[in-house]
Amino acid sequence: MANFDLTRRLARSDGGKIILLVMDGLGGLPMQSGGLTELEAANTPNLDRLAREGSTGLSIPIARGVEPGSGPAHLALFGYDPLVYDIGRGALEAIGIGLDIGAGDVAARGNFCTVDDSGKITDRRAGRIDTEKAAKAVEAMADITLPGVELVVREVKEHRFALRLRGSGLDHRIHDTDPQATGVAPITAQPSVPEARHTADLINQFIAEAQQRLKAHHPANMLTLRGFAGDPALPQFQDVYKLNPACVAVYPMYKGVSQLVGMTIIESDAHDEPLDEFKRVAAVWPQHDFVFCHIKYTDSRGEDGDFDAKAAVIEQVDKALPTLLDLNPDALIVTGDHSTPAKLRSHSWHPVPTLLWAPKTHMPDRAQAFGERECMTGALGQFPATDLMPLALAHAHRFERFGA
Amino acid sequence: MANFDLTRRLARSDGGKIILLVMDGLGGLPMQSGGLTELEAANTPNLDRLAREGSTGLSIPIARGVEPGSGPAHLALFGYDPLVYDIGRGALEAIGIGLDIGAGDVAARGNFCTVDDSGKITDRRAGRIDTEKAAKAVEAMADITLPGVELVVREVKEHRFALRLRGSGLDHRIHDTDPQATGVAPITAQPSVPEARHTADLINQFIAEAQQRLKAHHPANMLTLRGFAGDPALPQFQDVYKLNPACVAVYPMYKGVSQLVGMTIIESDAHDEPLDEFKRVAAVWPQHDFVFCHIKYTDSRGEDGDFDAKAAVIEQVDKALPTLLDLNPDALIVTGDHSTPAKLRSHSWHPVPTLLWAPKTHMPDRAQAFGERECMTGALGQFPATDLMPLALAHAHRFERFGA
Repeated sequence: MANFDLTRRLARSDGGKIILLVMDGLGGLPMQSGGLTELEAANTPNLDRLAREGSTGLSIPIARGVEPGSGPAHLALFGYDPLVYDIGRGALEAIGIGLDIGAGDVAARGNFCTVDDSGKITDRRAGRIDTEKAAKAVEAMADITLPGVELVVREVKEHRFALRLRGSGLDHRIHDTDPQATGVAPITAQPSVPEARHTADLINQFIAEAQQRLKAHHPANMLTLRGFAGDPALPQFQDVYKLNPACVAVYPMYKGVSQLVGMTIIESDAHDEPLDEFKRVAAVWPQHDFVFCHIKYTDSRGEDGDFDAKAAVIEQVDKALPTLLDLNPDALIVTGDHSTPAKLRSHSWHPVPTLLWAPKTHMPDRAQAFGERECMTGALGQFPATDLMPLALAHAHRFERFGA
Repeated sequence: MANFDLTRRLARSDGGKIILLVMDGLGGLPMQSGGLTELEAANTPNLDRLAREGSTGLSIPIARGVEPGSGPAHLALFGYDPLVYDIGRGALEAIGIGLDIGAGDVAARGNFCTVDDSGKITDRRAGRIDTEKAAKAVEAMADITLPGVELVVREVKEHRFALRLRGSGLDHRIHDTDPQATGVAPITAQPSVPEARHTADLINQFIAEAQQRLKAHHPANMLTLRGFAGDPALPQFQDVYKLNPACVAVYPMYKGVSQLVGMTIIESDAHDEPLDEFKRVAAVWPQHDFVFCHIKYTDSRGEDGDFDAKAAVIEQVDKALPTLLDLNPDALIVTGDHSTPAKLRSHSWHPVPTLLWAPKTHMPDRAQAFGERECMTGALGQFPATDLMPLALAHAHRFERFGA
């Protein structure tokens, strides 16, 4: 629904300040019929008060029935239609570890895998080797060179690394080499358009060189590449929304997406708890009129299938919330990028509980607590996630009137 | 969402009769946390009965978070996407006072302002002079002529007037001369495309002549021009909806928009109360199958910040409602063009309480009264205002089935 032409026309550079607090994978499901969801079960007196006072609703990340990946789900929260701004995972992964992607660059996400003597994959994630071992395997590839290209290979986490090629005449339109199955060999890199032939040849040369060097690094004795991508050249928050935005997040992917839309990344440690993150928000609050704060572990515990642990992360957030409220934001949005019900151990397509608290302008509704069923009758209804940013700007008095 | 190609294909020229009752700026907010909105607080037994019997919901005028002007908000209620049919204020203002805008005409909205000896604006609205004084300043400009062009300058209200140029070779693509600030001089009219050069020259000639004549009319000793516009050539109700529509309204702007879409304007006095307007609806009911009736003063009292007075206007409407109900419309819609919460003293982006009463076909819901929070759980959900006309046509049995 969101329309950048309209937003650009209406957004003004002064006005109030906004906090967007995202609990990754917030939405859930009852574990059994008649039960509560994670958010409903969690003891959340602060969030419940905000829901009671403000507006609630359910946001639809991509489209009804569509289970979102983390990248597009965040783009939607940031107001970018993920069907229009369809970014390759490779670019996200690279940017998330501090590798910038410029015009003409090609990035990909790499996975270490284990192959048997015949070259067939026996483990697609090399036994999920730890980051330290994986870093050694990455180091073994450091001396690989490709003609006419600057090559960077960098460890991400566990079995994952990022690859970036920089040079002229490159084209990212290349198919994945990951066959998404065991018992078969990795696929040779194939261009999806003729213009990417040269780049695919370079990639295959890299893979051949890497395979030699990885032999000694069992179980990380081979690699696959996915999500080849170039510079997505996204519109910037400064231009579209006239905001000076910052991002507080602990995980590379979310820093990456935030950087793509123009946010200043506030470095935060991977072991930060919600309260640590909120203190970082407070520290940068005077310098920014928009802060995005990302809580990762709601999603992680959902993926683990651990209902109680996910509810406990929500309770940590609730307990730390006064640190954000003390900043007196003009608009505070609390939502998730998608649902990750512990029951499903996976992302899901279910609409995401959302609350908007903007004491000067919010429309109260009948929600008495923050939870899926309370949000169903809320003032925001069910809405596309891309509508959240325009709503936040309106409540922060940063939108001009449309027409006279 | 509304789609004129689809509507044209489905609309038929016979069927039932529709009343669209618009209380301008109907939606509101509680003045303090825990309170009621204007509509919730008003004593409205008739509207509450209609809400109990019929369908309720919340309409989104332009897009979530977007505060609508009156012109685009009404176009949306009439089913015209205001992002597609983006009409200049000049055309609305001129048509609203009975100046028709034909193909090739150029209209603008004028404001009297006050300038100091150096020509800098000291008051953008000339102290909001009264209509009588402004009429004299307009009269002083009556003898201005421009080569090859028929010029009309006409008083609107207080410091506002309308300007129309009629002739060949005119082009409305001219920037505003209003700098939207004091301490600076009005801007010379500039064409935004080369084809409008000649028209801009004529406008500047008009301004120079006018400035001489306005010297004696302090504080209205200068003018600015805004919203240059040509004929918007909107699709007509007769063609799109196959309706024979009428408009009962007291304020020029609303008559203007209604005339643009093909409505017959039923003259109504600016001092008419709701009951007077409803009697005019009754008088023309036999001749029309669609009547739009506009109540202005809900918005005016909201803009005044007068919660109780706005609620009182709603109560006047409620009390007079039997006059409309006695007409036995097949579909009656009661809504607003946007919200004007007394708390904000301004239009706002909040969705607008809406009820649809069509006793043969309406879907009842759980709303027990007409108010924001009752409408949140209604049968219509939250919907774009442009969907109201298709709904009205359906409930009046004026739509063919789509497909066999």
